[in-house]
Amino acid sequence: MNKVRIGIVGLGRLGVKHAENIALRTSGAELAAVCALEPERVRRAQEEWGVTNGYGRFDNMLSNDSLDAIFIASSSGEHCRHIQQALDAGFHVFSEKPLGVSLEECMQAEAAVAHHPEKVFMLGFMRRYDASYARARKLIEDGYIGRPILFRGYSVDPESAIEGAIRFAPTSGGQFIDMAVHDIDLARWMLGAEATTVFAAGGCYAHPEFGKYGDGDNLAAFLRFDNGAMAFLLAGRTAAHGYSVETEIIGTKATLRIASVPQKDMVELLDDRGAVRECSQNFLERFGAAYLAETQEFVDCIREGRSPKVTVHDGVMATKVAFAATESFRRDELVRLT
Amino acid sequence: MNKVRIGIVGLGRLGVKHAENIALRTSGAELAAVCALEPERVRRAQEEWGVTNGYGRFDNMLSNDSLDAIFIASSSGEHCRHIQQALDAGFHVFSEKPLGVSLEECMQAEAAVAHHPEKVFMLGFMRRYDASYARARKLIEDGYIGRPILFRGYSVDPESAIEGAIRFAPTSGGQFIDMAVHDIDLARWMLGAEATTVFAAGGCYAHPEFGKYGDGDNLAAFLRFDNGAMAFLLAGRTAAHGYSVETEIIGTKATLRIASVPQKDMVELLDDRGAVRECSQNFLERFGAAYLAETQEFVDCIREGRSPKVTVHDGVMATKVAFAATESFRRDELVRLT
Amino acid sequence: MNKVRIGIVGLGRLGVKHAENIALRTSGAELAAVCALEPERVRRAQEEWGVTNGYGRFDNMLSNDSLDAIFIASSSGEHCRHIQQALDAGFHVFSEKPLGVSLEECMQAEAAVAHHPEKVFMLGFMRRYDASYARARKLIEDGYIGRPILFRGYSVDPESAIEGAIRFAPTSGGQFIDMAVHDIDLARWMLGAEATTVFAAGGCYAHPEFGKYGDGDNLAAFLRFDNGAMAFLLAGRTAAHGYSVETEIIGTKATLRIASVPQKDMVELLDDRGAVRECSQNFLERFGAAYLAETQEFVDCIREGRSPKVTVHDGVMATKVAFAATESFRRDELVRLT
Amino acid sequence: MNKVRIGIVGLGRLGVKHAENIALRTSGAELAAVCALEPERVRRAQEEWGVTNGYGRFDNMLSNDSLDAIFIASSSGEHCRHIQQALDAGFHVFSEKPLGVSLEECMQAEAAVAHHPEKVFMLGFMRRYDASYARARKLIEDGYIGRPILFRGYSVDPESAIEGAIRFAPTSGGQFIDMAVHDIDLARWMLGAEATTVFAAGGCYAHPEFGKYGDGDNLAAFLRFDNGAMAFLLAGRTAAHGYSVETEIIGTKATLRIASVPQKDMVELLDDRGAVRECSQNFLERFGAAYLAETQEFVDCIREGRSPKVTVHDGVMATKVAFAATESFRRDELVRLT
Repeated sequence: MNKVRIGIVGLGRLGVKHAENIALRTSGAELAAVCALEPERVRRAQEEWGVTNGYGRFDNMLSNDSLDAIFIASSSGEHCRHIQQALDAGFHVFSEKPLGVSLEECMQAEAAVAHHPEKVFMLGFMRRYDASYARARKLIEDGYIGRPILFRGYSVDPESAIEGAIRFAPTSGGQFIDMAVHDIDLARWMLGAEATTVFAAGGCYAHPEFGKYGDGDNLAAFLRFDNGAMAFLLAGRTAAHGYSVETEIIGTKATLRIASVPQKDMVELLDDRGAVRECSQNFLERFGAAYLAETQEFVDCIREGRSPKVTVHDGVMATKVAFAATESFRRDELVRLT
Repeated sequence: MNKVRIGIVGLGRLGVKHAENIALRTSGAELAAVCALEPERVRRAQEEWGVTNGYGRFDNMLSNDSLDAIFIASSSGEHCRHIQQALDAGFHVFSEKPLGVSLEECMQAEAAVAHHPEKVFMLGFMRRYDASYARARKLIEDGYIGRPILFRGYSVDPESAIEGAIRFAPTSGGQFIDMAVHDIDLARWMLGAEATTVFAAGGCYAHPEFGKYGDGDNLAAFLRFDNGAMAFLLAGRTAAHGYSVETEIIGTKATLRIASVPQKDMVELLDDRGAVRECSQNFLERFGAAYLAETQEFVDCIREGRSPKVTVHDGVMATKVAFAATESFRRDELVRLT
Repeated sequence: MNKVRIGIVGLGRLGVKHAENIALRTSGAELAAVCALEPERVRRAQEEWGVTNGYGRFDNMLSNDSLDAIFIASSSGEHCRHIQQALDAGFHVFSEKPLGVSLEECMQAEAAVAHHPEKVFMLGFMRRYDASYARARKLIEDGYIGRPILFRGYSVDPESAIEGAIRFAPTSGGQFIDMAVHDIDLARWMLGAEATTVFAAGGCYAHPEFGKYGDGDNLAAFLRFDNGAMAFLLAGRTAAHGYSVETEIIGTKATLRIASVPQKDMVELLDDRGAVRECSQNFLERFGAAYLAETQEFVDCIREGRSPKVTVHDGVMATKVAFAATESFRRDELVRLT
Repeated sequence: MNKVRIGIVGLGRLGVKHAENIALRTSGAELAAVCALEPERVRRAQEEWGVTNGYGRFDNMLSNDSLDAIFIASSSGEHCRHIQQALDAGFHVFSEKPLGVSLEECMQAEAAVAHHPEKVFMLGFMRRYDASYARARKLIEDGYIGRPILFRGYSVDPESAIEGAIRFAPTSGGQFIDMAVHDIDLARWMLGAEATTVFAAGGCYAHPEFGKYGDGDNLAAFLRFDNGAMAFLLAGRTAAHGYSVETEIIGTKATLRIASVPQKDMVELLDDRGAVRECSQNFLERFGAAYLAETQEFVDCIREGRSPKVTVHDGVMATKVAFAATESFRRDELVRLT
């Protein structure tokens, strides 16, 4: 089969990374078009990777029928609209998370995917393509941990990135939608179950700015799932040590931990501070290989006529739980999901 | 000053350890009397450490006015009665945790302590005397972690001890009273605040026997404190790797972890399983030095006319929170403490 | 510039990995020819990656002037001959380590490289392209560890691979040539100095088969360098826990450790054995990203007219030290290199 | 049996620690006399622990026949003389390491011990009484590591203590006698074998002052033992991270590591430097429990008529190897011990 010709929309930090992966490191793929609001970014991407087609408007890119697939890395509020348009225009679609910023639009996106069963749709829950998470999942499936008791997921951005986080706060959807949605997806995936109850709390411990948007700089949620398992999530913006994504699954027979120290590489320093392991500072440093692997999987699915394991339904369900957690935090009440 | 002459009541596993510490390793102390329901245990203890006075009945020991202090390691249901009797009989008193198994008796014990302000009373929250916890507390006091966001405390007994745990279940008071009470005390101590809200969940993941007593083999609770900080507690009975007591305090400037791998010593094995750190298997293995340190502190307080930092009020408050968590678990509702 | 068209010779385990990297994951490169003694391997590689040209004889591949570069992954004893032939035929050359199996042929290869200064030559000391080693080197250059005192390098293959190691023993050149040569290169690179004295020891601790070849299953060498620094190397075949490559550089101001536990990913297991980190089982698992990075660097050097930092001289010097260590082990004497 | 009445000579930092352990924490022992050149130290010790007998001269203390045992913590150069005098005066004797500072006096001490077979003699190789080392030894005895290949022992004092180390340099005997002697003892104990060959190197990497005494600030030695096993030792004075005592024993079936990060407790800090484990800063912090355990063992041996496992012969042999290593370093030659 010929190479999959991909057009990408959105050339922010993550969009540029996706574009680079498609252009240079994904076998069977070709970066055939780039689209962004900022003409300068379009021009730079075209030059950098020799991309013939550059666009300022998404619908113009969609009218290029030499393309096979669309990669959506636009702002969160546009994901659902872009998904629907791209599917309707006849393309395979990859969308960054979150699926959407309201439950309604998520469900519309789910319907759009259902209307195009012959098209590959994949959602960017890239952690599932990280080697450590994949091995953990496999161990659970194989019964190694026995019956799951507790999933614990921390996702805390580094304090050093706080300015961007505050700027992004009005449209982020809050810590649960923007950050914890990854952990919610992991919890559903690892536990093989759906959340039934959530109680959330937190606040502005260092940065009152988040309060204006019904958000905090650190929020936590305690959930129960329909198989009896529990989950505890922390999502925040003030980690001193770096991009702090850490996961634990406790079972009746064993416990799994993934990146309990989010060390950036295999170097340990012994100096006048003690024994120091430096930590990843951002999602690209931690999940670079996973971003590449998910892109390869998307392309392979198209070429092999397979469906990715991450579905639009996963996006809907994770969003639903994130909204319930947000509601619990704002109302200071237990929220029951069923 | 002369040695403090101590009589101990209760010669179970922990009572024997306390007796041995008093007899052999505590400076300024003398094990002058032992009391237990089982005559054989009394005899063995007398022989082992050359103790002149052996008793089968607690009130007989209390009538021995050559003693200075009473060490209470009897069963949890008798702590409060023994505390009150010993104080009224004119002795300094050390009591093992929990303070009591009902809130009423805890408050009576608190009143008894208040009636004898000239007597030293100390409660066995030994973790405060562990070097690692003490250093963590000091770092927090010094502002090192900034404002506290989340206290996480796990206390899970090893699966290998499950038979005893099941036998003990009818009178233990449940995971929160029996196990989590240590973490509740640590949370109060580390956060310098009182709990306001609790939601608890859990169940019988491996051992249905706990269900009969309104208990589970693993319970968790999510709490908020009056300074805005949060706490997440897990108390259970099914840890495969050992006596799993692990604590984390996340602040706006730094995070502290104590025993995140509860390794039993400084040996690491590299063999066909990988790199293995074996873990402590019981509370004596983990907290042996802390049990000794608290005993020394009790004796030093008596000799120096000082008051211990762990007060009867700490016992009352920890018990109160443990009861609220138990209630939340049983009723499946948020419980507000204020 | 057009893609660099590469022909590879040798389709053993590592050759196949290189071929796959060139075919699928290296930007600016094309796998244009494959050559191996075994027709079946050639056929499979051609099919797998759509390679037009397949060869059974190296000189036939060299007569294909549509190629730009030759990748040498043949057996160690052929490296030098292949290097010389490929350079003389006008190609850029990448060669796997070791440079050669005798000092004479290494020096001939060095001369051949010198005769073709316009051609890119690169030697496969891939560890230099591992992110952790690269960061360690940078820290040393920046003065972070102060003056280097000791370099310690362990390279021990897993016991599970012992059968292959024994089969390979007659032609491997011994532990120092085959295994420790990587550590010798790292030591030279990290210390910025040349070895002056070596004393080696070791033996057959588990597998007497190595003795026939003047080799052992575990050999160690203690070296001094011309800047006063020391090095201690262990090379062996009996690691129970996996592919055990571990490095330490101790300086007057700090110590660096790379992979002191060679964990295979970021998962930690807590089960009835304790806290377990599983380890990499082979060089591809540990150094997969480094193999890819060195190939990308080779291609980029060709396209950009640059020279790689790993030179043929590095290969000559590492081989020289490896031979001195082998001699010291066999003669049971100190060997002075200068 | 009555308490063992002990007189101690030497009230330096370690002597004071021993005195305190005897006075307060050793069961069956009584600190009955203290002796030191400095009257002020004698007076303070007497006051602190209520010791009746204080001496300025060692022979005066020896004439006090109410004592049972003598604890020698005097300067290294006096150990052998004090041992001999105390044994001849009829006392049980504990001596700090090193046994002596010349091989001749060590052998005289060995002869003195042989002349008093009814007296308990114990040498202060306290590491053998550390729980981690004891467990490692047990695992080796039980065959867990298979056949031993390599013992690696690092003993490096913190740079923060360098001033004292330089002051002590003229009389210390050098890094091998003063520091590595512990590792030599551990190697003999763990390997169950005697050293046959040693090559040593090193130098003054940061502090030229050590050069005057034929010493360096970091020395290393590579040894072979009569069972074919190897040992690598590093002894130094410039560790940035603390009191760096780390041990590894590699066998054909498994590897053991003791304190590969010499962390001071179970606290881990995550802050803007990364994940930090602070390290022990001196021998008392690291080996406090071992010092106490060896003292208890000495007292128990006297009370129970047993012999300690650490013999005077261990002291002689460790000293012999330390001298051979020193000679190798100074002459820059292999030294063969047999």
